[in-house]
Parts: sequence; structure tokens; C-alpha cells
Amino acid sequence: MYSVEVRDHVMIAHSFKGALFGPAQALHGATFVVDAAFFAPVLTPEGVVIDIGKAIDTLKAILQPLNYRNLDEVDVFAGVNSTTEVVAKFVFDRLAAAIAVGELGAGAENLTRLRVTLSESHVAKASFEADL
Amino acid sequence: MYSVEVRDHVMIAHSFKGALFGPAQALHGATFVVDAAFFAPVLTPEGVVIDIGKAIDTLKAILQPLNYRNLDEVDVFAGVNSTTEVVAKFVFDRLAAAIAVGELGAGAENLTRLRVTLSESHVAKASFEADL
Amino acid sequence: MYSVEVRDHVMIAHSFKGALFGPAQALHGATFVVDAAFFAPVLTPEGVVIDIGKAIDTLKAILQPLNYRNLDEVDVFAGVNSTTEVVAKFVFDRLAAAIAVGELGAGAENLTRLRVTLSESHVAKASFEADL
Amino acid sequence: MYSVEVRDHVMIAHSFKGALFGPAQALHGATFVVDAAFFAPVLTPEGVVIDIGKAIDTLKAILQPLNYRNLDEVDVFAGVNSTTEVVAKFVFDRLAAAIAVGELGAGAENLTRLRVTLSESHVAKASFEADL
Amino acid sequence: MYSVEVRDHVMIAHSFKGALFGPAQALHGATFVVDAAFFAPVLTPEGVVIDIGKAIDTLKAILQPLNYRNLDEVDVFAGVNSTTEVVAKFVFDRLAAAIAVGELGAGAENLTRLRVTLSESHVAKASFEADL
Amino acid sequence: MYSVEVRDHVMIAHSFKGALFGPAQALHGATFVVDAAFFAPVLTPEGVVIDIGKAIDTLKAILQPLNYRNLDEVDVFAGVNSTTEVVAKFVFDRLAAAIAVGELGAGAENLTRLRVTLSESHVAKASFEADL
Repeated sequence: MYSVEVRDHVMIAHSFKGALFGPAQALHGATFVVDAAFFAPVLTPEGVVIDIGKAIDTLKAILQPLNYRNLDEVDVFAGVNSTTEVVAKFVFDRLAAAIAVGELGAGAENLTRLRVTLSESHVAKASFEADL
Repeated sequence: MYSVEVRDHVMIAHSFKGALFGPAQALHGATFVVDAAFFAPVLTPEGVVIDIGKAIDTLKAILQPLNYRNLDEVDVFAGVNSTTEVVAKFVFDRLAAAIAVGELGAGAENLTRLRVTLSESHVAKASFEADL
Repeated sequence: MYSVEVRDHVMIAHSFKGALFGPAQALHGATFVVDAAFFAPVLTPEGVVIDIGKAIDTLKAILQPLNYRNLDEVDVFAGVNSTTEVVAKFVFDRLAAAIAVGELGAGAENLTRLRVTLSESHVAKASFEADL
Repeated sequence: MYSVEVRDHVMIAHSFKGALFGPAQALHGATFVVDAAFFAPVLTPEGVVIDIGKAIDTLKAILQPLNYRNLDEVDVFAGVNSTTEVVAKFVFDRLAAAIAVGELGAGAENLTRLRVTLSESHVAKASFEADL
Repeated sequence: MYSVEVRDHVMIAHSFKGALFGPAQALHGATFVVDAAFFAPVLTPEGVVIDIGKAIDTLKAILQPLNYRNLDEVDVFAGVNSTTEVVAKFVFDRLAAAIAVGELGAGAENLTRLRVTLSESHVAKASFEADL
Repeated sequence: MYSVEVRDHVMIAHSFKGALFGPAQALHGATFVVDAAFFAPVLTPEGVVIDIGKAIDTLKAILQPLNYRNLDEVDVFAGVNSTTEVVAKFVFDRLAAAIAVGELGAGAENLTRLRVTLSESHVAKASFEADL
């Protein structure tokens, strides 16, 4: 299985509901360094999994509505905690949808799996990975 | 599949038995930067794989008996080489046991897989990963 | 000149006032990975710049009132933007004060310089460095 | 499953054929930081996946004919684009062949899987991973 | 002294003249991960060294004519080896010129020092640093 | 001022004398990732600070007598604690001596400053830097 993985980041505020979050129930924030890995069993005739430029642009477009925002006020996270795991799943779902509608271009038809990893610090990260 | 991964480290001495180790048969040492990744197919109602604070505390508690020790004199490694692979498996087994007895708290019942990675330098690491 | 440098992090929310901040004028947040470097021309008799355990504990204590907070509501940043640069200077000042009152223990009397670096993402950081 | 992973690098020139590469159709270059991960379900009696020294030496030997070269003129890439994915597959194939002929020494008979990852910058990488 | 530091990268081909380069006399290439650090003794009224967005854009504009190029054919390196050191100096000079003509905007008048670091692999880098 | 910086590592055991070390008084160990930075105001006619190959080889030769050793039994550390700071100074002194006797080759005559940094984990490092 081949993969290509690209990196971008967002800087967001949020708060969490639930005693297990302790002090993180207060309004705070995070830089999420976001890695998106695209998996395919074969390459295009050009020798790539997908067009890496399109991968970078699509990831940036998906992250843009989150960047410099308070996620408590972003509709897609209404009623849920925008934890690192939940945001990873959100980015995964949007990338999967972009792939399904052909935004990733050549090679996207070969993609069988996707993994989104969010590093929230030098000591903690979360990911969501699944078949497409 | 979701994951959360947390990082800690230990600084240990040890020696190895076996000609393949060459100069590493002598008493030497290592910093092991330890990453523990917890995998679950679903999140808790709070939106997390597990309580990351409990993950960090449990990992630290498991590493504590190794930290600043000569592993040649630590009972759990008696008769075996405390290679990076062997220590990764030790940390895995202890984390798996902690999960089994409920020390990881909410969400631990969803965990299906665990991976422990030890980086011994900027150019070498080892891991043990398995279903729970 | 010798140095020792230790790392910790905080996760904060904040907003900025000023047109140059563009979208970052909105409430957002950041993970600041904080490196504090202590410089001394000589070592203690034990062979250290300072007690690294005390350095880590002091840095953590200074960061604690910022962690999981909205810096817009933290008194020390009233009336100023809590930019990466400003927070670096805040941490510097607190560390310098801790050194001055003897909290860093043995070796602190030798310290002549301090540098605090805050990495806000994998592509941007800020620092404040000065003689003590 | 256990793994050991070792790192090396090469510095190469190349050009790409195909409109999707945009400006990368011109002769340019890359540093590929190469990580090779070897997977085995069991350890040798010495407690290792394989002899890490042999892993490092074998990887270096495989990379040597690429290092400081224009890959457009290297026979194994004749008629194909030497993309990060393609070079990852090349290194995978050579490592798999080295394993098959016994160059990796003790433990190589246990290897069931191999992954080669090439980081081309701080924001992009590609890999090839498969069972042996 | 305050600093802000931003990161970008270029992927280039080149060859070197001179026996000391050994195999690097051949046409090969590199990814240069470029860090530009801007130093100022004071902050703007907004609390920044300079507008980080302008810093990122200016660095990108300076790197653009090098990206995906064979530096042997880029005029500014005619007759010289485009070593990591030489390219660091080139980026430094262009950034210094951009500062001098006001492209960096608010705060640029406070800048007293600049450092450009190029990492060519995980084990080697070069920099040029000087007062403005 | 130009610099080039190269990286290597050693894996050592040691113990410390002195109550401030707490549990690190016991025999333990560390991986030291060693960065050596060489500073010069001018480049050689070839466009380099020094021959980076010679820098890498010289650093490796200096580290070799420490690698896979118990530093408590290495003569140069007799009667002193082989702390990260002390080992940084040792490497500095050996590199400075190698420079003085011409082992670094072309460009070494221009070197005016040297910095040796030892990272002992992902959260702590020490350095020694001085004019030559």
C-alpha cells in the first residue's frame, strides 16, 4: 500500500463539557498540526498516489472555516465537544467527501484508506483512520 | 478507528548478551522516548477515546520503576536483554493490564488496540502493537 | 557559555486587537510549546548549570496560571495583546524573578542570561532573550 | 507485532513528466529522509527484531547508488518519474530482496512486513508498506 | 531581544565545483527547510516584532524563484557554488533588502538582526546571521 | 556570521554524585543527540564554512570512545559527574583541539566560534558555546 501525507495547521479556541476534562472545561485553545495521509494500492501513470498540490489545497480549504475560530461557535460542532479526536473525524469526513466528489483529481479513484492525525502538543496527538 | 497517543520518557542503563550486539554488549544506556497510542472504534459521550490525563498518569506510573535504573538489575528483565523491543513489549503489557483492571477510566472499555513506540535516538526506534 | 534548556507547554485562548492581525482578531487559541534556556559561564561543583528538576518545576509553576485559560481574561495581559512575543516576555520576567529570589537553587547565582522560546506551530515561533 | 525502524537520507536531483507536476516538471531536487520499518511477530533469542546494525548498513547500501545523483539518469528509474512514492517502492523492493537473500541476518526469517517512508520536507512524505 | 521565526522550504537541484565536495560534485539536489528569524529590541504597539503574515509572504516570495529550479542555471548563483551556506546568505540578503524598502510593514523599523537557517537533512544545517 | 551544524549521537551509562540529582544518583543512562555548530565570518572559495564531511567524521571520532560506555569508567570523567553539560564541554574541547591541529581541513582557519548541544530527551538539552 502506498501513501502520501501532507501537513497544515489551525489555531482554535474551545471549551469542553464534562467533569473528566478538569481545567480544560474552561475556554482555552490549541494549535492543531494536521497530517492527512492518503492510501492507495496503486499509483497513477505519473507515479503518484494523488496530486500532492491538490491534497494540500483541499486540506487547507477544509481547515479554513476552523482557523482562528472559537469552535464552540462553529455549527458543525454544536452540541458536541470539539476534542482533538472529534476534529480529526471532522477533517476525515470532509476529506472523504472531497475525494468522493472528485476534488482530489487524478489518482483519487484509487484511494482506499485515509488517516487524519492532529498533534495538539509535542506530547499528545489523536487520529481517525478508516477505509473509504 | 480513533487513536490518542501520549509521550513520556525514561533514562536507563543496561548491557546486552549476544555477539550480534557488538560494542553494545558493554554496560551503556539510553533515553527511551515512549509513545503510547490507544485505539478505539468509538468515542465516549464526551468525545474522547479515553481520559488523556489518565493515559499520561498511567504511562508515567508504569515507567517510574524503570527510570534512572540499570535495567540489568530490574527483576522483570532478569535473564533477558532489555532491548528497545523488549522494553516496548513490557510497557505494552503493563498498559494492557492497567486497561484490563479499569485504571484508564471512561472509554477504556472501547479500546481494541494498543501501540507502544520507543525512540532510542533521532535515527532508531522500536514498537510493539497488538489487539487487546 | 553553558546552557540548559527545558520544555513544557500551555494551551490557551485569546483574541487580538489591531487590523494587522486579520482573522486572528477573533477569539481563537494556541498551543505554546515553551523552551526555557538558562545560561551560565560556569558549572556548580556537581557539574550542572542549575538543578534541572527545579528548572522544570519552576517553569511549570509559572505556566500553570495560563494553562487552559482565555488570556483575554488573565490580569497580567489586561490592555495588551497576549501575542507569542508578549507571552514569551511574561515567562521570561517570571523566570528572572524566580531566579532573583533563589527559587532555582544551586547554580542560579551563576546565571547571566535567559531565553524563552514559544513555538506556536511547526512553522512559527517567538522568543525573548536577555542578560539577567 | 514488533517493529524496528531506522533512518538515513539521500540528496538527489530529478525532473517529472506530466502536467500535474506544474513547476516540478523542471529539473529540481530533494532530500529524502528515509525511514525503514521492519515488522515481525516474534523476537530473536537475543530479544531483537533484527540486528539493527545490519538494518542500518543494508539501508545505506541500497541508498548509496541514489545519493548525490540525478535520478533522471539512474537506470532503475528509466521511463518512470522518480516521485517520492516511486523511490519509496524502489527502496522497499531492494530491502525485501536483501531480506530474501539473508543479508539482514538473524531474525530476518521472522519478518512479515516492511514499510519505507520518505519525508521530502517538513510538510510532506510518502510511504510504501506491504507484507513480505 | 525579541525574535519571531517562520519556516518555509524549497526543493532544488545543483552541482558543486571543487574536490572537497567528493560525490556532491555531480548534479544532485536538496530540500532546504528555511527558517527566518527576525530580531528586535522592542515590540510594536500591537505587541509583535513584525506582522508574521508579511514575514511568511516575504520569505515565500524570495524563495519562489529558487523553488523547483536547478540552481546551476539561476543567475544569482552564476560562478559560485550554491551551497547551503551560500543560499542562506542569499535569502538573508534578500530579506534584509525587503526590510530596508519597507516590505515587512509595521515593526520592521525596529529590526536589528536577522538569521536565516537552512536545514538540508535531519543531520545537517547551515545559517547566516548578522546585524541589519 | 555563517554556521554549519551536524548531528550524531551516543548511548551511554553513568551515575551522578550529589543530593541534587535525586534518583539520578543511581546508575542509569542516556542517549545524547549531539549537534556541533561551527561558526565563521567568511566562507572558503568553494562556498562552505568547512568540509561538512570532515566535520561529521571528526565529531564521530570524538564521540566513539564514549559510545556504548559507562562514563563512570571513562578516564576523562574521573572525579567529575558526566552531566550533559560536562559532556557538551568535553566534546567542545575535543572539537576545538581538532580544529587547532588542522583536522577539519579547508576553512577551519576561519572558525571563530563553536557550539556543542546535547539533547538528552525531547524535553531537555544542554550546550557549551564559546569563541575559539
